[in-house]
Amino acid sequence: MTAAVAPNLVAAVDQARHWSDLTAMAAIGGFTDAAGNQGVNRPCLTELDREARRLLLSWGEAAGLAPSVDRLGNLFLRLEGADPTLAPVLTGSHMDSQPQGGRFDGIWGVLAGLEAVRAIREAGITPRRPIEVVAWTNEEGGRYAPGCMGSMAYTGFAPPQTWDGVTDRAGIRFSDALAETLAAEADIPRRPLGVVEGTAPFAYLEAHIEQGPLLEAQGQDIGVVTGIQGSRWFLVEIRGKSDHAGTTPLGLRQDAVQDMLRAITALNALMHDPADILRFTVASIEVEPNTSNSVAAVARFTIDFRHPDNAVLQARGNAIEGVIQAAVRNCAVTLTERFHAAPAAFQPMVPDAVEAAARAQGLRHIRMPSGAFHDAQFLVPVCPTGMLFVPCRAGVSHHPAEYATPEALAAGTRVLAQALADLANR
Amino acid sequence: MTAAVAPNLVAAVDQARHWSDLTAMAAIGGFTDAAGNQGVNRPCLTELDREARRLLLSWGEAAGLAPSVDRLGNLFLRLEGADPTLAPVLTGSHMDSQPQGGRFDGIWGVLAGLEAVRAIREAGITPRRPIEVVAWTNEEGGRYAPGCMGSMAYTGFAPPQTWDGVTDRAGIRFSDALAETLAAEADIPRRPLGVVEGTAPFAYLEAHIEQGPLLEAQGQDIGVVTGIQGSRWFLVEIRGKSDHAGTTPLGLRQDAVQDMLRAITALNALMHDPADILRFTVASIEVEPNTSNSVAAVARFTIDFRHPDNAVLQARGNAIEGVIQAAVRNCAVTLTERFHAAPAAFQPMVPDAVEAAARAQGLRHIRMPSGAFHDAQFLVPVCPTGMLFVPCRAGVSHHPAEYATPEALAAGTRVLAQALADLANR
Repeated sequence: MTAAVAPNLVAAVDQARHWSDLTAMAAIGGFTDAAGNQGVNRPCLTELDREARRLLLSWGEAAGLAPSVDRLGNLFLRLEGADPTLAPVLTGSHMDSQPQGGRFDGIWGVLAGLEAVRAIREAGITPRRPIEVVAWTNEEGGRYAPGCMGSMAYTGFAPPQTWDGVTDRAGIRFSDALAETLAAEADIPRRPLGVVEGTAPFAYLEAHIEQGPLLEAQGQDIGVVTGIQGSRWFLVEIRGKSDHAGTTPLGLRQDAVQDMLRAITALNALMHDPADILRFTVASIEVEPNTSNSVAAVARFTIDFRHPDNAVLQARGNAIEGVIQAAVRNCAVTLTERFHAAPAAFQPMVPDAVEAAARAQGLRHIRMPSGAFHDAQFLVPVCPTGMLFVPCRAGVSHHPAEYATPEALAAGTRVLAQALADLANR
Repeated sequence: MTAAVAPNLVAAVDQARHWSDLTAMAAIGGFTDAAGNQGVNRPCLTELDREARRLLLSWGEAAGLAPSVDRLGNLFLRLEGADPTLAPVLTGSHMDSQPQGGRFDGIWGVLAGLEAVRAIREAGITPRRPIEVVAWTNEEGGRYAPGCMGSMAYTGFAPPQTWDGVTDRAGIRFSDALAETLAAEADIPRRPLGVVEGTAPFAYLEAHIEQGPLLEAQGQDIGVVTGIQGSRWFLVEIRGKSDHAGTTPLGLRQDAVQDMLRAITALNALMHDPADILRFTVASIEVEPNTSNSVAAVARFTIDFRHPDNAVLQARGNAIEGVIQAAVRNCAVTLTERFHAAPAAFQPMVPDAVEAAARAQGLRHIRMPSGAFHDAQFLVPVCPTGMLFVPCRAGVSHHPAEYATPEALAAGTRVLAQALADLANR
């Protein structure tokens, strides 16, 4: 492990250029909310997403990086290594945003990767291994659920055609949206799909804003991420009967909204955690016919449940169906698990490289797990994996108020550059 | 009051023609649900609604009735009286449906009025007063809330421009949708807007399916309606903050869905009624950003609250805001009352005429209040008003399974014809 600082590399990270890249990217899908915050709404595989990818490709070309795209739309920029036959070090994140998202989630990891390889080149370093910057397709899951489709397909976690029939709210199939993006990038060389059709990377290192309050509260510069908590996503459908709201006695109704209320109340009890480590969220609700004077025939809601301890994730997650069935009174219930990822612990190699770089650069750092869900999760079974976090204001993310300072981001990019150079020389 | 049966008038009501009219009308916006029920989705002021109105106009023309339309889009077909200067007897209902509605709600009252005046003409009766069949604009409130805009404007309950700025889910303003319908009916003579710009009718009688289970359960043919329970409609907006569902501890969230849950749970307690007379319904919910892994920033839900006793309607309705404010924990709440109609008791004149006709025709009948909300409610302050109900299967309404037999509808139409002829001869 390289403990020494690499001064010319650290100096080559250009904070102003990096911030300018982020600002230009944030304009694509950018909006200002009522409070004056600059948000981003850039769903995956849309025209805005294609515009953002095209901008990234132009920067990659200017930096002398070789572009390629796989059949899931994962986009790569390659800095060639001294030995092109060696497995590359992979870095990156995603470019899509939540519907009312921020300017840093995901896109910072891609642009930090770009800036890091630019700095490596400009510092005159030719690493032994190639370094590839990746933008994974559909991490957020906001337009097409679940998220992380690109990394799941790349790593063989799920077959690439798994989500072909998934539709967005407008009824557009994932496969059609993907085909449209691939057609728009017909000029970009195709590459095999990750470990499924090709070979595994040597290592994966993803940079990301923390999306939580810890680093800022403790005055830390760098979070050396040790693993990612597990996630289980469910869709609950409660099916009753529509009736006239004025004439039908409450005792005779099969009211889907009232049974949804009973179900969520019971789930709140199941998911109660005095330590406040468990994350239980009902954030999407749809009602049919959704008119104020017809009793609801159908209510659908999502469950997002996460925990770092796999035993808790399994026990409480598996209890969800029984708890809902016991809670509802008049309606039929179907529960679908849409996504299930066990907690992932990183091997020491990449976290150690991150920590060594942070220490060498004199930055305050801590080891911590990730509360959020990331593409890195899926790389764990495939290669040594790691992440580095930088602090973001008040832990806010998935919101236009999401913010990280240019200084904090540049510091993270310097650590990333050094860790990548270190890993690529092994 | 005419107690004698009018045999030639009763015989002139053509059950087959009437059923055929209903069937033809049900094809406009008609659909078949998964259970094979024939439903109707015909929102007000849409192209489908215009098609239905045009069909009604063609039948009115064939029957020698004079059409007219007012500036709220209320559509009239007039059977001239022996003395055209006398105030007319008005009958009718509405042609719009709930989004997943049935084939009888509203439209039957319009077509029963049409069949009744046809029968009066064909029986060779020229009543003293004109009889007008009316189709009120937007009774359901499904596309534009509140419902009963046409009758509210006609009776001066609210100024005609009150709802100009109300938008549907597609953002189309009520005033624009109305203008489109009026432009499509430029060939139909314009008339003054009801009692606001013209004069009051002599009486109003609306025929409707019961939309409740009572008549069928008791084997009754006719419900002689004595009044309509009161209604109050509210919109509740709960405004919190969106956060990352994976990283934000539950204790730090302002989760709009969770506060909505607290609010509805508290309202259920407020609205508890062991006698099951009170109607409390939450049937429409919207969440923002409505994505499964971002804590809900905003939750909106509707309240439909009805009671026949004005004291209860006022006391519990006025308590709603305080109960919600006390229940929510982390979010801001705004409550908007969108509609408020006190219980309406009918004067005896019209119910007595309906009862006399039912008795003369040997039909089983009971006096009963209306649990549902109708345009008749707004006519009460303006002229003697009444309604007649016919049984519908299992009390189901606002649903594709809504059904009434051809025999039951024809029986109701015969009572309507006799009561209208009776009232129009006074």
